[in-house]
Amino acid sequence: MTATTTETDAATLDRVLQAAADAAPVLAETSAAERAGALRGIADALDRAAEELVALAEEESHLPNARLTGEVGRTTGQLRMFAQGLEGPDQLLDVIIDTADPDANPVPRPDLRRMQLPIGPVLVFAASNFPFAFSVAGGDTASALAAGCPVVVKAHPGHPRTSERTAEVVSQAVAEAGLPEGAFALIQGQEAGVTALKDERLRAGSFTGSEAGGRFLYGVAAERETPIPFYAEMGSLNPVFVTPGAVEARGSQLADGYLGSFTLGVGQFCTKPGLLFLPRGSGLVDELVDNVAAAQAGPMLNERIHQGHSTVLDELAERPGIRVLHRGAVDAEGGTAAPTLLATDVASLLEDRDAMLTECFGPTSIVVEYDDTDQALEAARAFAGSLTATVHAQEDEAEQVQPLLHELRERAGRVLWNGWPTGVAVSWAQHHGGPYPATTAPSHTSVGMTAIRRFQRPVVFQDVPDALLPEPLRDANPGGLLRRVNGELTTEDVTR
Amino acid sequence: MTATTTETDAATLDRVLQAAADAAPVLAETSAAERAGALRGIADALDRAAEELVALAEEESHLPNARLTGEVGRTTGQLRMFAQGLEGPDQLLDVIIDTADPDANPVPRPDLRRMQLPIGPVLVFAASNFPFAFSVAGGDTASALAAGCPVVVKAHPGHPRTSERTAEVVSQAVAEAGLPEGAFALIQGQEAGVTALKDERLRAGSFTGSEAGGRFLYGVAAERETPIPFYAEMGSLNPVFVTPGAVEARGSQLADGYLGSFTLGVGQFCTKPGLLFLPRGSGLVDELVDNVAAAQAGPMLNERIHQGHSTVLDELAERPGIRVLHRGAVDAEGGTAAPTLLATDVASLLEDRDAMLTECFGPTSIVVEYDDTDQALEAARAFAGSLTATVHAQEDEAEQVQPLLHELRERAGRVLWNGWPTGVAVSWAQHHGGPYPATTAPSHTSVGMTAIRRFQRPVVFQDVPDALLPEPLRDANPGGLLRRVNGELTTEDVTR
Repeated sequence: MTATTTETDAATLDRVLQAAADAAPVLAETSAAERAGALRGIADALDRAAEELVALAEEESHLPNARLTGEVGRTTGQLRMFAQGLEGPDQLLDVIIDTADPDANPVPRPDLRRMQLPIGPVLVFAASNFPFAFSVAGGDTASALAAGCPVVVKAHPGHPRTSERTAEVVSQAVAEAGLPEGAFALIQGQEAGVTALKDERLRAGSFTGSEAGGRFLYGVAAERETPIPFYAEMGSLNPVFVTPGAVEARGSQLADGYLGSFTLGVGQFCTKPGLLFLPRGSGLVDELVDNVAAAQAGPMLNERIHQGHSTVLDELAERPGIRVLHRGAVDAEGGTAAPTLLATDVASLLEDRDAMLTECFGPTSIVVEYDDTDQALEAARAFAGSLTATVHAQEDEAEQVQPLLHELRERAGRVLWNGWPTGVAVSWAQHHGGPYPATTAPSHTSVGMTAIRRFQRPVVFQDVPDALLPEPLRDANPGGLLRRVNGELTTEDVTR
Repeated sequence: MTATTTETDAATLDRVLQAAADAAPVLAETSAAERAGALRGIADALDRAAEELVALAEEESHLPNARLTGEVGRTTGQLRMFAQGLEGPDQLLDVIIDTADPDANPVPRPDLRRMQLPIGPVLVFAASNFPFAFSVAGGDTASALAAGCPVVVKAHPGHPRTSERTAEVVSQAVAEAGLPEGAFALIQGQEAGVTALKDERLRAGSFTGSEAGGRFLYGVAAERETPIPFYAEMGSLNPVFVTPGAVEARGSQLADGYLGSFTLGVGQFCTKPGLLFLPRGSGLVDELVDNVAAAQAGPMLNERIHQGHSTVLDELAERPGIRVLHRGAVDAEGGTAAPTLLATDVASLLEDRDAMLTECFGPTSIVVEYDDTDQALEAARAFAGSLTATVHAQEDEAEQVQPLLHELRERAGRVLWNGWPTGVAVSWAQHHGGPYPATTAPSHTSVGMTAIRRFQRPVVFQDVPDALLPEPLRDANPGGLLRRVNGELTTEDVTR
């Protein structure tokens, strides 16, 4: 790493956590519109600072300028999406009202009015591989602020100066929006991060990174005196299955797409396709090898990740069932790696599944040959949770492919058809999650509008007089907020 | 305990878990309407068997016939509520569709279609104090089946025969509805329960009971090779604050209501008001003592709970800051206890908060005198998470009471005005949850329609052809399912 990280000392950390705790009730009182304004303010400020931030991130992460510039756009787009959600028909508040029913059976029903409140101060562990979109002002921060939670970000050590500068921009925008100072803060250092996670003032945690790191922190959160939800988005193998029909119809296009996807960002995506299942004897393997052999080496994020890739790759390459189709050049000093392609078949994979179903974070992928549909199905069943799973097929193969899609949807958060899993659209419907080890919370997503649900907590008010209710729950509904009243969605006033 | 529990042996347990795993994909394929039919079938069957079930439960739990009969009604009402939800406008599927947008920035957006799928086989730990509503066919089972999850219930040892018989009724109704056999099963015994919780075939757990029990099982779930969500609903203190205005306006009525609430079911409710905050010198204490002294002893659920109550009460009574206003008669042999009223003030409570803020499960409550609004606020801040918190006040005290309501809503899942927390209406808006130690999952509820969210897992389908999509996600929407399409709720078809 080129930059020095100034670790947050204990006294500073305590001040940060206290400020977050103090800010929580103030933020909880802001309206959805106020929070939307603050998110737009942050997005605008980041856009203005983009050039400077990208230059810092280029230096620290070795990612190319165009990619980083696009990532800032994605990051500010994400902040604006939550603003839009807060300004939308239901303000992301999930208001549910059941009016009193004195005739209800077996007992009369009181007036019940429920809405989402912020869960409290959130600790965000930033990722290495997205210095913007999954880092200081990334999706976790955006969704937690949208919910009304103060945010403490633990910077990733891979890009400390980018993190510091982003945090300054965010903090200034937060202040300009009139939010309390404790609404947002950055801390640095592993020890500070773990100490913070153990602190009772924090009420939820989130993380993007390795399975080992996420699982460790999940354990810390679960063992606190007061356990808290910990949303870790971790490793993923992202299997891709190609049918004979697809190979025949567009083999070369698939070979290109695969190379592009598994080497994008030098293979350092949580959605990188780690295994490509091809029908045996598809004739595509030679083309894949040629493609991979012609591909350039790229700089990896940092020394630790470079070394991790080499270690896992060395282990994989030595498994008896693995053939090395092309071994990419690796330059430890320069921190670069070129794409590597390995091969096996389903029988060997199933025999050695623990080793072969280990994520190799970097530009390495495994081609797995299968004999027939049943064997492809069997292979699919070998996977634990994954963020994505993909099928490339022709529409006239629908009937054969349906069982495979079923197996895959049991194991993945996102099921793709004729696409590549790298690239995660930010929208209402997106779900970036999945069963363990993809995440520690299979019911939640870290990307998309519903990511806010991780940081909300419902409260119901029983028979509370109108004047004492939070505004979204009152009888009168002048803003036309969309609410579920006695089971039906409506924008009307409520009559008691 | 009067009955012998036959503990589930290892071989039987393995068969049960395998049947649940095998049933999971079959259940996942059922339509919302099919699941609704099954839930109604279970409810009807339980209603038909009510007399027999209530007789068994009376014997095993010592709860009175009228209460148990009402509880069966609540239980079947709950099953029918989820059936209604599944037949409702959105079928509880939370469908979100974003159609492709080739002009989206920074990258074109694919077609994304997301819905809730069942999380997989669920293990339900039944409660002692509600042999029906939080037991074999209770809210956890109803919401998990509604989600499409196979359910394995670990019976509470306090009512094994009631559990067995209820399970027979449920199993038969499940079979008659055409669901696979593994959709529902009962197991008995602590060891079988823990073994099941560690089994990788189970994908979520739920629990209603003590803080110690819930926390232990939460730890087991978190330490599995594959951790799973564990929704424990545990201890709660349910503080009640009474203002001077309320005492003046309706002191006697409050005294009656308080006694009724903290002694309901011999104080064995998770929503029992454990502490009543009264203005100092309210003059209500004498009346409370008279009421309590006149109250009858009642039979407690079982020996363990009877003993637990006596132990905690003994410890409380010996705290230097506690005065015993009335000590109810306790008959260990007969298993009965009469109501006990303790007293302290806020200063003493704050000095000895760990002891005084310990749940005493049974017919005991503490009256706490406060000097002024500020002191009441300070006391409110001493509480950790609670299922409920209540204020009794006059509407013209709104301004003074607002800060107290704010403190309470930070700590409780349900905030009541001029009511008593025992009695939990089952409806759309209900939220029976709260920050730890009320639950291990503050974003979720174990009662009410949204309890289903604990057992659902979203999956998004990207660019999948219409014919291969689950029906609720297809372009055509002949049933008028309410879906969020490009951000707006609609029942229209989707145009690609």
